[in-house]
Amino acid sequence: MYPVLERIAYLNAGSVGPLAQVTVDAIVEGRRRDLEEGRSGRPYLDAMFAARERIRGALAAELGVPPENVALTRSTGEGCNVVVAGLRLGPADEIVTTDVEHFGLLGAVHASGARVRVAAIRVRPAGEAFDAILAGITPRTRLLALSHVAWTSGHVLPIHELKAETGLPMLVDGAQSVGAIPVAAAGLDWYTISAQKWLCGPEPTGALYAADPEALAIAQPTYFSQRAYKPDGSFTPKDGAARFDSGWIDPPSLAGLEAALAVHPPWRFERAAEMAARCRALLAERFDVVTEPGHATLVSFRWPGDDAAEAAGRALERRVAIRDLPGTRWLRASCGYWTSDEDLERLLTCL
Amino acid sequence: MYPVLERIAYLNAGSVGPLAQVTVDAIVEGRRRDLEEGRSGRPYLDAMFAARERIRGALAAELGVPPENVALTRSTGEGCNVVVAGLRLGPADEIVTTDVEHFGLLGAVHASGARVRVAAIRVRPAGEAFDAILAGITPRTRLLALSHVAWTSGHVLPIHELKAETGLPMLVDGAQSVGAIPVAAAGLDWYTISAQKWLCGPEPTGALYAADPEALAIAQPTYFSQRAYKPDGSFTPKDGAARFDSGWIDPPSLAGLEAALAVHPPWRFERAAEMAARCRALLAERFDVVTEPGHATLVSFRWPGDDAAEAAGRALERRVAIRDLPGTRWLRASCGYWTSDEDLERLLTCL
Repeated sequence: MYPVLERIAYLNAGSVGPLAQVTVDAIVEGRRRDLEEGRSGRPYLDAMFAARERIRGALAAELGVPPENVALTRSTGEGCNVVVAGLRLGPADEIVTTDVEHFGLLGAVHASGARVRVAAIRVRPAGEAFDAILAGITPRTRLLALSHVAWTSGHVLPIHELKAETGLPMLVDGAQSVGAIPVAAAGLDWYTISAQKWLCGPEPTGALYAADPEALAIAQPTYFSQRAYKPDGSFTPKDGAARFDSGWIDPPSLAGLEAALAVHPPWRFERAAEMAARCRALLAERFDVVTEPGHATLVSFRWPGDDAAEAAGRALERRVAIRDLPGTRWLRASCGYWTSDEDLERLLTCL
Repeated sequence: MYPVLERIAYLNAGSVGPLAQVTVDAIVEGRRRDLEEGRSGRPYLDAMFAARERIRGALAAELGVPPENVALTRSTGEGCNVVVAGLRLGPADEIVTTDVEHFGLLGAVHASGARVRVAAIRVRPAGEAFDAILAGITPRTRLLALSHVAWTSGHVLPIHELKAETGLPMLVDGAQSVGAIPVAAAGLDWYTISAQKWLCGPEPTGALYAADPEALAIAQPTYFSQRAYKPDGSFTPKDGAARFDSGWIDPPSLAGLEAALAVHPPWRFERAAEMAARCRALLAERFDVVTEPGHATLVSFRWPGDDAAEAAGRALERRVAIRDLPGTRWLRASCGYWTSDEDLERLLTCL
């Protein structure tokens, strides 16, 4: 199903997932159609809009939420900018985040102009994250912005517990969770999807869940945001979260994403968790593993040498794809339902 | 070179351009590589960054500006949002625009929160645009935001003359100019490119020229914006306009865009102007043509019937691709260097 697995022990879906044959077939077929029939006209546009709605539904199902609460984006970072810019915060406001976040979230947080409080959880046991994040909250906190699964440590953060405890607006970076572990976004405020990672879609594709779309300003309108507009740019937004749709996605990529979403088996989460646990146990025999047991599908571990980037490069030469985490000496292996025992053996052998 | 032309009189590059065989070949080749080799690792990323820099250079050349003043975006609308949000305007500020603009520009203008003054030029002779736009300027004007070639009327707006006269910051929507007519962005402040139209690139691709990148706030940071960042999201921007690079473009699309940019012949502008003039003359024999002679490569004309959208649909059924302009009874034909006399004959025959 995933041809790259025949050549490479591909343990890097946390960066970008493997592509299925049917996904690339759909893209190629779509581009051939574009080549011969052109990229315009009512039937072409109608098919594009219909594909967007089917994908909106499929991605909503990944989060267990209604399609009308989901916007189509092209990355988690885009979703984060939509939310944080739409909140119109200023220097008197505060955002609480953590020190295990990706720049896709942090850049938006910084651009808000709000004061940013960073909970230090990276070098603490996962069980201490809840209290460390709570300690950052003040009466001026307007937003909690954090990931569901940390791209660095691989730990699951207690997002639902934090929401229940604080009731504060919460933006969740779902880049390392959706497609990797079961996700239920209901009860949260905003939740992002990176469809090119664990969902194995073409890049750049993604989505943004918004519990209450009408409550957020549209800071970055696109042609997809509006149903009608006036010459001064004032406009009637589309109903629901579609008003935050972030821009054109080429129809071949839409077809590829639809194909990608259709191939995942019902046992994907159990199998991925099992392989991640096995990967962790094997690595723990020889390395200092950062990721505690029982979290998600990323396994980070300390590289004993000086240069983790060089180690990742050497592994790739031996057809094992993992990544280093800049600014640390950590390496990270990503396990999916597609990961085999042989992939793990090859990882251990090559290190 | 453009297979769609063998099947369709494709007169709709103002929406999306025809794709060259080499462009689609490059995309397909890239996706096959992704399928078999995976989408990660240092060599993969290095090649992606190198392709971005080559394309930055090629798109800068289209505007006659240095590459360090060009950001890679995925649409004109994205570029407009980058600029207008970065200016941090408020209700005490004013933006002057016109009534021939696309929502890609207008949406950003509206979202700024500034007061918007709309110069009425759509139903006036093109020669009156200069005075009509000047009349909208007040001491509170912080930005002129307008297109180089109006997507509706097809008229060239006097952007350089307006800049010389007013000295005001100017954002130019270049969606209907770059690749269609010669463009020199030097002397202007911001200028957008839609690479999927007249440059015949894959969508969504584009660029933004910024004369003074350091002077504009980074309102929507992306991973490409920064050279280094801290846990609170504060970051060291990349040098030059690359700080406004708007997000991931898949390497197959980068390869496709590079191929697309390489096929345009040196005589493209002269030939496109010649075909547009011929198209205009033929249409004027039977229709009330909106676009005055001697403008760009769009020719808009009044459809004598009630339903221009239906007329465009019927034309496509007869393998002639033109478009209607919503809210008017206008139809629009787009002529490129690839347009043949036979295409124009088929247009006239089918109407």
